[in-house]
Amino acid sequence: MKHSAHPVLSGTRFTVTYTLTGNKRQALDKAHDICYEQTVEFPPDLVPESLINNGIVGRIEDFGRSGRGSYRADISFSAETVGAASGGIELTQLLNVIFGNISLKPGIKVESLALPSDMLRLFQGPRFGAAGLRRLVGTADRPLICTALKPMGLPPLELARQAYLFALGGIDIIKDDHGLADQPFCPFGERVARCAEAVHKANGETGRSAVYMPNITVPADNLTQRVRSAVERGAGALLVIPGITGIDTIRLVAEDESCDLPVVSHPAFWGSFTVNPYSGLSHYVLYGQLMRLAGADAVVFPHHGGRFAFSREDCLNIARGCSADMGHLKKCLPAPGGGVTKDKLRDMIDLYGRDFILLIGGELHRGEKDLAENSRRFVEMLENGVS
Amino acid sequence: MKHSAHPVLSGTRFTVTYTLTGNKRQALDKAHDICYEQTVEFPPDLVPESLINNGIVGRIEDFGRSGRGSYRADISFSAETVGAASGGIELTQLLNVIFGNISLKPGIKVESLALPSDMLRLFQGPRFGAAGLRRLVGTADRPLICTALKPMGLPPLELARQAYLFALGGIDIIKDDHGLADQPFCPFGERVARCAEAVHKANGETGRSAVYMPNITVPADNLTQRVRSAVERGAGALLVIPGITGIDTIRLVAEDESCDLPVVSHPAFWGSFTVNPYSGLSHYVLYGQLMRLAGADAVVFPHHGGRFAFSREDCLNIARGCSADMGHLKKCLPAPGGGVTKDKLRDMIDLYGRDFILLIGGELHRGEKDLAENSRRFVEMLENGVS
Repeated sequence: MKHSAHPVLSGTRFTVTYTLTGNKRQALDKAHDICYEQTVEFPPDLVPESLINNGIVGRIEDFGRSGRGSYRADISFSAETVGAASGGIELTQLLNVIFGNISLKPGIKVESLALPSDMLRLFQGPRFGAAGLRRLVGTADRPLICTALKPMGLPPLELARQAYLFALGGIDIIKDDHGLADQPFCPFGERVARCAEAVHKANGETGRSAVYMPNITVPADNLTQRVRSAVERGAGALLVIPGITGIDTIRLVAEDESCDLPVVSHPAFWGSFTVNPYSGLSHYVLYGQLMRLAGADAVVFPHHGGRFAFSREDCLNIARGCSADMGHLKKCLPAPGGGVTKDKLRDMIDLYGRDFILLIGGELHRGEKDLAENSRRFVEMLENGVS
Repeated sequence: MKHSAHPVLSGTRFTVTYTLTGNKRQALDKAHDICYEQTVEFPPDLVPESLINNGIVGRIEDFGRSGRGSYRADISFSAETVGAASGGIELTQLLNVIFGNISLKPGIKVESLALPSDMLRLFQGPRFGAAGLRRLVGTADRPLICTALKPMGLPPLELARQAYLFALGGIDIIKDDHGLADQPFCPFGERVARCAEAVHKANGETGRSAVYMPNITVPADNLTQRVRSAVERGAGALLVIPGITGIDTIRLVAEDESCDLPVVSHPAFWGSFTVNPYSGLSHYVLYGQLMRLAGADAVVFPHHGGRFAFSREDCLNIARGCSADMGHLKKCLPAPGGGVTKDKLRDMIDLYGRDFILLIGGELHRGEKDLAENSRRFVEMLENGVS
């Protein structure tokens, strides 16, 4: 039987830019290796001529020095290597071709992707995106503010009390701390019901549209059920940890027709991908491009200078990845957090502009007043900061 | 409302051993930080006394020097932090507590886990395990042999022809190359039907019990459907890339009641976790302990000295993790591969003993004879090698 070509992707190629360490010879060897390892995975001398001619083997499109002891290679792959017989693209297989086996080899970093519009069209991308998220919470002119319900260990009623006060104080998005799952001391269903109710109550008093965002990171067979449970109980957005559940689960939630809520990614378990400057995935591609392909409306990550190890440049690259041109895919919002304090506001606005979600946690619990008053003061400070 | 404790886990704690870089003071600071960051995620001075007293905050159980500029900390966590209100344990939340946020901090590596039997009892673990896999393929006395159908780009009939010859030649497990998904040039359903049929045909001639193992790495919403499709078409084992689909999908397949097949993990996309000696996850914990908790019956990884960067020590640690005592959890089989050639057999047997799956790829295509004859010679060589 002759197999027909992919209905859309036949002849289409996409390009991945890699940074490769070593001298020129070594880096070029790595580039050639990627062409084979990521596709035919076969000794080059044994690959049938036809598979090289028909473009299944990757191709080096460009190669040049990128820094001291490092080179840049643009390598193109046939879109058919990631296409599905049904006509779409499998995001899982796209990840596999971009960085599957070569993740196991040292000195190879994925810097960025360039997907042609034929391919981008097959991704829905963020359902809300930056503009949609703004509309949802009704905050037009300043960075959005998000805070977390914590600490782990408190029961639903305690967290709901916090949620009420935060919403009353003007916080836009009130999220579960990422460590809240379905623990016996704080069961998911009851927590979501109580917290969503508390935020709705506060909205009734303020006339605002704050949303409650539960953490739906969950075993694979329960994800869809947990999305439904969150929707039914009045959640306004959903938080997922793709480092744990797999990047494709972001897409699953973003495309879930039973729910029409924004989905936000959390970076837990992802540190290993970005910890090494010459290995893994760039901040730009992981937090920016891949999250938008998957459909995240916002991406949480650690702002530099807090208690995590990201640099200012890393944060800037995430922001760039969230808004770089990707055809019809909406921009998503960077959501820097992790030890954000008042004295960092100026730098954050300088770095991200107005289009970001400021994620503030423990700091709001530290003021002399109650959570609502602390939140109010913080919102005011931010409004003054950008005016 | 008072929340009741977890029916099984109340009072139970589990321990994670971390390697921490720095001098003693710095390493101890990191250990304290892990206790808070992985649980309450709150400034220590703001944590309610009750959450420290009831054990929600992690506890340093042991701390000592482990090498030049590195320390070892045993940190215990309440099992309730990972328990589900329904009574079980969420593997996703276990991963989150072990390494979620602290993955984003430098110089922290997860070395090993110690879960008490109360917790281990809540995991099914490998359904077949090492002994069950041996029984399934009917090979009692030597390492099992697995090879891959490749290269990507060939149509189902070509791969089925290979599968037939490999099975005829005595290969135990014939797997999809991990880059085979559902591409237009080789659709999943047709590939599985043809290849399974080819292996069954060969089994009829040899009287052996070789199995065909398709790659079921797939978007999240299609996994269960693809498992069913593979079962219906006669697959004998299933290959998953948990680095792409999430570790918990291994569990989903291992516990799927609609299928009674072994599940094997492939290491693509996982390189970043182990590339750094002082950050990420140890080979022992990722390929060994976590895969057994999830239920993998065998784990593929690159044997040292091939085209990947694992050391002999890394491989040994994987083998140890596959067979270390974990209560009722069955042992799983290490499946070293990645550029295995005949001259490596002696070392592999020295290193892994008899209980492993030897994964050989391109090398079988290199002999002067056809794939069946090349396979036969290789099986014989292995049998002589261990006799």
